[in-house]
Amino acid sequence: MCELLGMSANVPTDICFSFAGLMQRGGKTGPHRDGWGISFYEGRGLREFKDPFPSCTSEIAKLIRNYPIKSHVVISHIRQANAGRVCLENTHPFTRELWGRYWSYAHNGQLKGIKKKALNYYFPVGTTDSEYAFCWIMDQIRTAFPKKPRSNKALSRLLHTLSEELRSLGVFNMLLTDSSHLYCYCSTKLSWLTRQAPFDRATLKDDEFTIDFEKETTPNDIVTIIATEPLTDNESWARLNTGQMVVFKDGVLLHQLNG
Amino acid sequence: MCELLGMSANVPTDICFSFAGLMQRGGKTGPHRDGWGISFYEGRGLREFKDPFPSCTSEIAKLIRNYPIKSHVVISHIRQANAGRVCLENTHPFTRELWGRYWSYAHNGQLKGIKKKALNYYFPVGTTDSEYAFCWIMDQIRTAFPKKPRSNKALSRLLHTLSEELRSLGVFNMLLTDSSHLYCYCSTKLSWLTRQAPFDRATLKDDEFTIDFEKETTPNDIVTIIATEPLTDNESWARLNTGQMVVFKDGVLLHQLNG
Repeated sequence: MCELLGMSANVPTDICFSFAGLMQRGGKTGPHRDGWGISFYEGRGLREFKDPFPSCTSEIAKLIRNYPIKSHVVISHIRQANAGRVCLENTHPFTRELWGRYWSYAHNGQLKGIKKKALNYYFPVGTTDSEYAFCWIMDQIRTAFPKKPRSNKALSRLLHTLSEELRSLGVFNMLLTDSSHLYCYCSTKLSWLTRQAPFDRATLKDDEFTIDFEKETTPNDIVTIIATEPLTDNESWARLNTGQMVVFKDGVLLHQLNG
Repeated sequence: MCELLGMSANVPTDICFSFAGLMQRGGKTGPHRDGWGISFYEGRGLREFKDPFPSCTSEIAKLIRNYPIKSHVVISHIRQANAGRVCLENTHPFTRELWGRYWSYAHNGQLKGIKKKALNYYFPVGTTDSEYAFCWIMDQIRTAFPKKPRSNKALSRLLHTLSEELRSLGVFNMLLTDSSHLYCYCSTKLSWLTRQAPFDRATLKDDEFTIDFEKETTPNDIVTIIATEPLTDNESWARLNTGQMVVFKDGVLLHQLNG
């Protein structure tokens, strides 16, 4: 079992607070000692930080906790390895380019027999079933839409169908983004919330850390956070159902597709 | 004009010393204020750090200077923008996947009319002529070799031919790697040296920093460094000629192709 964290916002927002909670689960309050990674988007540009070491003691994770990198879209993952050894190439998120956009993806779960599916354009660098599934998804998108479709709805529907197919192979909780949209699919566990005015205080479950978002934000900010488990204990998180996909853009829920 | 730095080694080696010299040129001893980036390979895995800010003041660059990330292959770049605005997606190195390997690339120079060349598989995310040329190179490799060729020689020859074609459009100093081989092409400026036993002391040109490699290495280590300009002033660097390509693996010169 791994843990996922995603963010979609309408203004460049730092994720220090949520990441501070998540990184404690990487070997301290949680058992996910086998590496961690995070993708930050700034416009179409992507920064990726990865470590095959526990996030709770990582020098690079400390930098991210303390150095506010502001971003519209973030995907993060901490790993407890099941398929594929612990090494850098097996560390999420994984990234590929399609239509001149960097797509970034993180997965929690196991997929039996995924490697029987044929691949055409994208090939895994590491040995995880997660990265293999990502390459298959990217192949399917590329085949269905050689060019970026005008409407996002058809793409969301395709991604939901592909996710349902993957869920039939095991457990498939997923975060995927093309730098503007954040696609989140729930097989067993994903919760989300949107923070917007009037902002309030929030307290982390996993670390002694309280933040007053009123002081950190402007009245027009919309910030959605999605995670395997709720990260705060005084806010109300919505749990996704099995087979549900939610799609966010600029912090706003665009589509919801049910299983 | 930008500056390039590459490393190829037969043991995981940190690049803190050379990077300490390079980052001073990013706004302090050199004019390259428009961002910097570095790709580290650990096996087939890739870590990339990027910043659209000057390297001499970057928090992330400080981390890399102080935190020894050990790697077989490294590519780094500091940017003085000419084509394409200063932003994360225009920051080198650029990365794409081919044959289940991450390819990383950095370029120094300008290429007139590069955007007239057709692209098939790989498309740029940013607006630089450098990234466009990278996508074109990756397209050409993929077309010539849908699967990884057994011998590296044919691939080196193709890359040399492509580089010569790009040099006809302007200036094309390039570092490219697929995680095992480091391809270096010189249009105007590139110098390299190999450090191996007996090791000696080296003194940076751009920072007050001397290192005794005798203490940092084992007798079997072979480490090749390549850079736009020599980084030390007490070692003898070999300058490449215009049109020359050198290919390194595990720190050793494998091929040399002349213009």
